[in-house]
Amino acid sequence: MWTFDAFPTAKVTAAYGFTPSKSFLNHVRESSARIAGGCSASFVSPQGLVMTNHHCAVGCVEQLSTQQKNLVEAGFYAKRAEDEVKCPGFELDRLDAVDDVTATVRSATAGKSGRAFLDSLQTAEAKLSSSCGKTEAIRCDVVSLYHGGTYDLYHYKRYTDVRLVFAPEFGVAQFGGDPDNFNFPRYDFDVSFVRAYEGDKAAATPEYLHWSKAGSKPADLVFVSGNPGSTQRLLSVSQLTSIRDQADPHILPALAELRGLLEEYQTQGAEQQRETNETLFFIENSFKAITGEQQALFDPVFFGRKVAQERAFRAAVARRPALQKTVGGDWDKLAAVQLRKAQLATRYVAIAEGPFTDLFRWARTLVRYPVEKAKPEAKRLPEYGDARLVTLPQQLLAPIPVYPGPEELMFNFWAKKTREDLGADDPFVKQVLGTKSPARWAHDLIAGTKLGDVAARKALYDGGTAAVDASQDTMIRFVASVDAQARSVRKQYEDEVTSPENKLSEALARARFAILGTSVYPDATFTARLSYGTVKGFTDANGDAVTPYTTVGGLYNRATGSEPYALPQSWLAAKASLDSNTAMNFSSTNDIIGGNSGSPVVDKAGDLVGLIFDGNIFSLGGAFGYDARVNRAVALDSRAILAGLRTVYHADRVVSEIESGG
Amino acid sequence: MWTFDAFPTAKVTAAYGFTPSKSFLNHVRESSARIAGGCSASFVSPQGLVMTNHHCAVGCVEQLSTQQKNLVEAGFYAKRAEDEVKCPGFELDRLDAVDDVTATVRSATAGKSGRAFLDSLQTAEAKLSSSCGKTEAIRCDVVSLYHGGTYDLYHYKRYTDVRLVFAPEFGVAQFGGDPDNFNFPRYDFDVSFVRAYEGDKAAATPEYLHWSKAGSKPADLVFVSGNPGSTQRLLSVSQLTSIRDQADPHILPALAELRGLLEEYQTQGAEQQRETNETLFFIENSFKAITGEQQALFDPVFFGRKVAQERAFRAAVARRPALQKTVGGDWDKLAAVQLRKAQLATRYVAIAEGPFTDLFRWARTLVRYPVEKAKPEAKRLPEYGDARLVTLPQQLLAPIPVYPGPEELMFNFWAKKTREDLGADDPFVKQVLGTKSPARWAHDLIAGTKLGDVAARKALYDGGTAAVDASQDTMIRFVASVDAQARSVRKQYEDEVTSPENKLSEALARARFAILGTSVYPDATFTARLSYGTVKGFTDANGDAVTPYTTVGGLYNRATGSEPYALPQSWLAAKASLDSNTAMNFSSTNDIIGGNSGSPVVDKAGDLVGLIFDGNIFSLGGAFGYDARVNRAVALDSRAILAGLRTVYHADRVVSEIESGG
Repeated sequence: MWTFDAFPTAKVTAAYGFTPSKSFLNHVRESSARIAGGCSASFVSPQGLVMTNHHCAVGCVEQLSTQQKNLVEAGFYAKRAEDEVKCPGFELDRLDAVDDVTATVRSATAGKSGRAFLDSLQTAEAKLSSSCGKTEAIRCDVVSLYHGGTYDLYHYKRYTDVRLVFAPEFGVAQFGGDPDNFNFPRYDFDVSFVRAYEGDKAAATPEYLHWSKAGSKPADLVFVSGNPGSTQRLLSVSQLTSIRDQADPHILPALAELRGLLEEYQTQGAEQQRETNETLFFIENSFKAITGEQQALFDPVFFGRKVAQERAFRAAVARRPALQKTVGGDWDKLAAVQLRKAQLATRYVAIAEGPFTDLFRWARTLVRYPVEKAKPEAKRLPEYGDARLVTLPQQLLAPIPVYPGPEELMFNFWAKKTREDLGADDPFVKQVLGTKSPARWAHDLIAGTKLGDVAARKALYDGGTAAVDASQDTMIRFVASVDAQARSVRKQYEDEVTSPENKLSEALARARFAILGTSVYPDATFTARLSYGTVKGFTDANGDAVTPYTTVGGLYNRATGSEPYALPQSWLAAKASLDSNTAMNFSSTNDIIGGNSGSPVVDKAGDLVGLIFDGNIFSLGGAFGYDARVNRAVALDSRAILAGLRTVYHADRVVSEIESGG
Repeated sequence: MWTFDAFPTAKVTAAYGFTPSKSFLNHVRESSARIAGGCSASFVSPQGLVMTNHHCAVGCVEQLSTQQKNLVEAGFYAKRAEDEVKCPGFELDRLDAVDDVTATVRSATAGKSGRAFLDSLQTAEAKLSSSCGKTEAIRCDVVSLYHGGTYDLYHYKRYTDVRLVFAPEFGVAQFGGDPDNFNFPRYDFDVSFVRAYEGDKAAATPEYLHWSKAGSKPADLVFVSGNPGSTQRLLSVSQLTSIRDQADPHILPALAELRGLLEEYQTQGAEQQRETNETLFFIENSFKAITGEQQALFDPVFFGRKVAQERAFRAAVARRPALQKTVGGDWDKLAAVQLRKAQLATRYVAIAEGPFTDLFRWARTLVRYPVEKAKPEAKRLPEYGDARLVTLPQQLLAPIPVYPGPEELMFNFWAKKTREDLGADDPFVKQVLGTKSPARWAHDLIAGTKLGDVAARKALYDGGTAAVDASQDTMIRFVASVDAQARSVRKQYEDEVTSPENKLSEALARARFAILGTSVYPDATFTARLSYGTVKGFTDANGDAVTPYTTVGGLYNRATGSEPYALPQSWLAAKASLDSNTAMNFSSTNDIIGGNSGSPVVDKAGDLVGLIFDGNIFSLGGAFGYDARVNRAVALDSRAILAGLRTVYHADRVVSEIESGG
C-alpha cells in the first residue's frame, strides 16, 4: 500500500527484475479513480468510461430501480450513449497532484494539546482544503500519513455527473453471496461500468488503462492501484486490546441482530428484498470483515507478534534518551485513554453518531447546516467547512429513494439498542421515547416526516434556521430535540478520547519515523496507493493447496439454481458459447483492504489484467498486519470481463470502446 | 451454593450468630423442588401446591393457549380445583436422599482414560441410576461434585402429573422485559403456582414452606434453596480463554441474529408473537447471560484474579512431589485439548447437536430409540439408558403444539449457519441442501412432516425400526440420512475433547481436594444447594447507591403503558386498593446462578420471604467466580405475592391455602 510518490522502485527491481518507471507510475495513477463513499475505479477509455465493481455501483442501480423494474435483479445496459442514466449522489475523484503541507500543519498545531490541538488541526486542514478552489470540479483534502507523521494536500479532479453504462445481474455479480464472501475459490462477475460526464458530455480522459490481450498467468508480477480505506497497523497493544475486548464484542452482535431483522423483513416479498438488498449486503459484509479482524486478534501467534513488535519499538525508544523523554510514557497514556474510551464509547455511538439511515443523516444536516454556516469557519464542526459546504447540496438533495419499511426498522432497532445500552432509566432514553415503545416511536417518526421528498429537504435547506425552527416534520423535531446532547456527547468524546489518542499516536508515529524511516508504508487512509504482488494460490485451513485461478466452467459447476448460487438466464443461455477454460477469478499476494474494491490489477506494461473485488478470509486480519503466507487479494480476470460483455451481454458498444482503446 | 449435607453451619454461626439446625436444613430441603428443564420451586401447602417463577411455567401456559385464547397474555387462574389443567411434559422432582457412590464409580473407572474412561463412567452411572427403581415416580441421578472429585446418587420423588393453578399476565410477570432483565431496581411479579398430583389427586406434601407474616428487612440473614444450573469456577485459564476467545464470539452473534429473525417475525402479528414469545425470551435471556459472562472474562481485574488463583494452585501442587508427578502436566494437556476443541467445536455444534427445535429433537429420538434399545445398556448412548427410557415416552408424546412458521425459521437459520460455518463446499452441507437454498430446504422439510401430531410420533415410536425405515416423513428421512455423521462427529468430539477434558478436570479437582479440602463449595450441577446471604443493595456502574427494596408504588411509576412497561388491566384497576409501600422486589448477597429461578428465599425460621427470579448484571460473571461486592440475587417479595393474589387477582382459593398453611 505504497503511495505513488514513495514507491519502493529499487525493492521491486531487486525482487522481480522489473523497474516501474516514473511514467509507468504516472500512467497508472492518472488512470485510477476513487468513488466517494468507499471504492476504487479506473478509466478504461479516453471518453470517460470507468470500470469498478458491481457492488460499488449497486447503490446507483438500486436507486434507478422502481417497483416495476428491478434493475439490481435484471441488470442494466445502455445500448446507446443517450441511454446512460445519471447516478444520484455519485462522486468520482481522480488524484492529480499532491503537495507536502507538513510544515504548515505543524506550525499551526505547535505546542497545542487536547481540544486545542484538534481545533487548530481542523482549522488548518479546513483552510488548506479551501485554498485550492471552491468549485464542484475541484476537491482538495488534507491527508495525514503515519498518523500525523506527515501531512499532504491531495488535489482531485471531481466528477459529480456520473452515469450508469452497464451492470450485470446481481445473481452473477455477487454469485455465492454471503457464504462465498471473503472465500476463495470464487466465481463472481463483480463488474460494472459508469461514465464520467462534464458539461453534459462524456468527459475527456486521455489517461486510461488499455486492456491486456494476454491477461495474466501464475507467478506474474501485478500491481493494484486503489484507495485502501483503513488499516490500523501502528496501533498499540492497548488499542488492539480495546478493539478486541470492547469494540468488537459490542458491534458484532448488533450487526448480527440487524442482519436477522433484515433477513426476516426480506421474507415478506420481492419488494422488501429490493428495498433492503444493499443494506443487508453492507451489514453482512461488515459483520464478516470485523469477525475476521477479531479472529486475528484472538490468534495468540498473531497477537503475540504485535506484542513483540511493540516491545521492540519501546526498547528502541528507550535506547534514545531524547525520544524516551518525549514519548517514553505515551504507551501508558494511550492505555489510560482506552479505559476512558470504554466508558464513553457506548454513549458516543448511540447519541453522537445516532441512527444509521438516510433520513436521520439528512435531518441532522438540515438542523445543523444553518447553525454552523453562521459561525466563522474555524469554529464550525469540520464537516461544515467551506470546502464541504460546496458539495453539501449535492449530497442532501440527491433524489435517492427512501423506503418507510426499512427506515422504520432501523429507527426501531436504534431505539431498542440505545435503551439496552444506556438503560431504561437513562434521561436521554426517557426523553426520546417518552411513554412510547421503540416500535411505536419509530412508526410515528416515519409516518410524520416528509424528508424522503427532495422538495421538502430543499425547502428546509433554502429556508435556513427559520424554516427549521418552524418545521413540524417529526424527523426534524426529533433531531433538533437531541442536537444539544449529541453535540455535547461528541465534544466530550473528542476531548477525552479522539483528541488525546490522535496526539499520542502522532507522537509515537514520529518516534517511529525517527527509528524506522519509511521502510514500512503508512496505514491506509482511503487515498491512492499502489501495491505489488504476484498471482499466487495459498494453503487453506484444512491444509489443502488452493490454485490461483478459477474458470468459467467452474462457475457453471457451482450453479445449483438456488440463491445465492442461481445464475441469471443470460449466463445459462450463453453457456455453450463460452470457453469453459476462460479464467474467471484469481488470487494474488497484493496487500489490499476495504476501499480497494474496484481497483484495477495491471501488469508490467501497465495494462489491465483484473479487477479487485475481495480478499480471502485470511486477509481480514490485514487491518492490523499483513501475513504474506496466506493473505490474498481476489480479482475478476479481465478475460472473463470481456467474454461476459461480448458473449453473454452482447454489450458491443462497451466492447468496442474498450477494444479500440486497447 | 453449599450442598445440604455439607452446609458450613459453624461459619454461619460465627458470622451471623444463628445456627441452622439439622431439622432446619431438612425442612428446607424437603420443602424444595426442582423442575426438570432448568428451574427450582418450593412446596407451599400440604396439598402439593408448588410456587415457582412465571418464567419457569410459561412454557406450560403457552402450550395450554390457543389462537383464540392467549393465556400467556391474559394469565390463568383455576377458580376451582377441577379447573387445574395438566402441563404437558412438566416434571417436578423432590430430593429425598443422597448416597455417596464415589467408591463404586472409582472402581469402575480405575486405570481407564479417554473413550474407555467415559464409557465405563457412563456404564457405572447408568447402572447406579437404574438401581433404585424404574417406575415413573422415582428418579435417580448420579451427581458428580468437584468435577469428579466425588460421586453421589441422588434419589428423587418424581411428579409427572403437574397442573397449572395460577399464572399472572406476562406483562406484569416479566414487566420491563429484556431491557430490565438482569437489572435492578426491578418490579416483576414473576410468580406462578402449579400443583403436584398423584393418582389423579393432589399430592400429599407434609413438608412445605410456611408464609412469613413479617417478611424481610435490610441486612436480614436469608437462605436460598434451589438448583443452580451450572458454574465453571474450577476452570483452568486455558479453558476460560477458550470460552472467551472461541465459544462466546461464535455463539453470541448467532443468538443475536436469531433474535433479530424472531423479533421481525413477531412484527407480522399477534399470532406470530404468541408462537415465539417463549423462544424469544429464551434467546434474549441466553444472549444477555453469556454477554455478562464474557464481560467478566474481558475484565482484566477479574481475569487477573483467575490467573493468580491458578498460579497459586500450580505452585501448591509443585510443592507436593506426589501430586506434581500425577497432575503437574495436566494444565498443559488441558491447553492442548482447548486447541483441539477450537478445531472440532463448530462441526460438533452444527452436526452432532443440530437444529434447536422440538421437531428435530423428536425425530432424532424416534430414529435412535429403536436402534439404541436393541443394544445392551452399556453400549448405548447415555440418554438411552434404561432409567431414561422410562420417561422417554412422556417427553416424546407430550401434546406440545408445534408451529410451522417458527420451525421453518429455525431450520432455515440452522442450515444457513451451518453453510456459513462449514463452507458451501463441505460434503455435509452439500448432502443436506443438494441444490436447494436453506429457505427452500426448510420449507420443504416442514411441509412434509407430520411429527407435530402426537399420533404420528406414537405410531413411529410403537412401530420401531421397521416403521422408521418405511416412513416417508421428511423430518424422519432428513434425520436418518445424517445420523451416521452426527454420531461419528459426536464420537470424535467426545474422544478428543469431552473425555480427556473430563479426565483432566477430575484429576485436577482431586488435587484441589488434597490441598483445599471442602473449604470451597463445588461447582453448580443443577442439584439441590443452599446459599446464605443478607438482604443488601449495591453500588451501580455509575457509583450510585442502589437500595435493596423496590415498592409496588415504584411499579406504577415505571409503567408507561407501552411494552414492555405496560401493566395489565388487572393491576391498573387495583392500584387504589394496593398499599404503594408494599415491598415489591429485593436484592440480596446470595450466590445464585441460572437454575435458581423459582428458588424460595427463607428466613431464620425457615419461613418464606421471597422468590428468586433473577440476578443483577454483575452476577453474570458468577459463572466463573462470585464477587461479593456487587453480585446480587434478585427476588420477588413474599408480601407482594400475597397482596397481588389477594387484591389484584382475588385468587382466594390459593390465598386461603397458603394462609391456612402459614
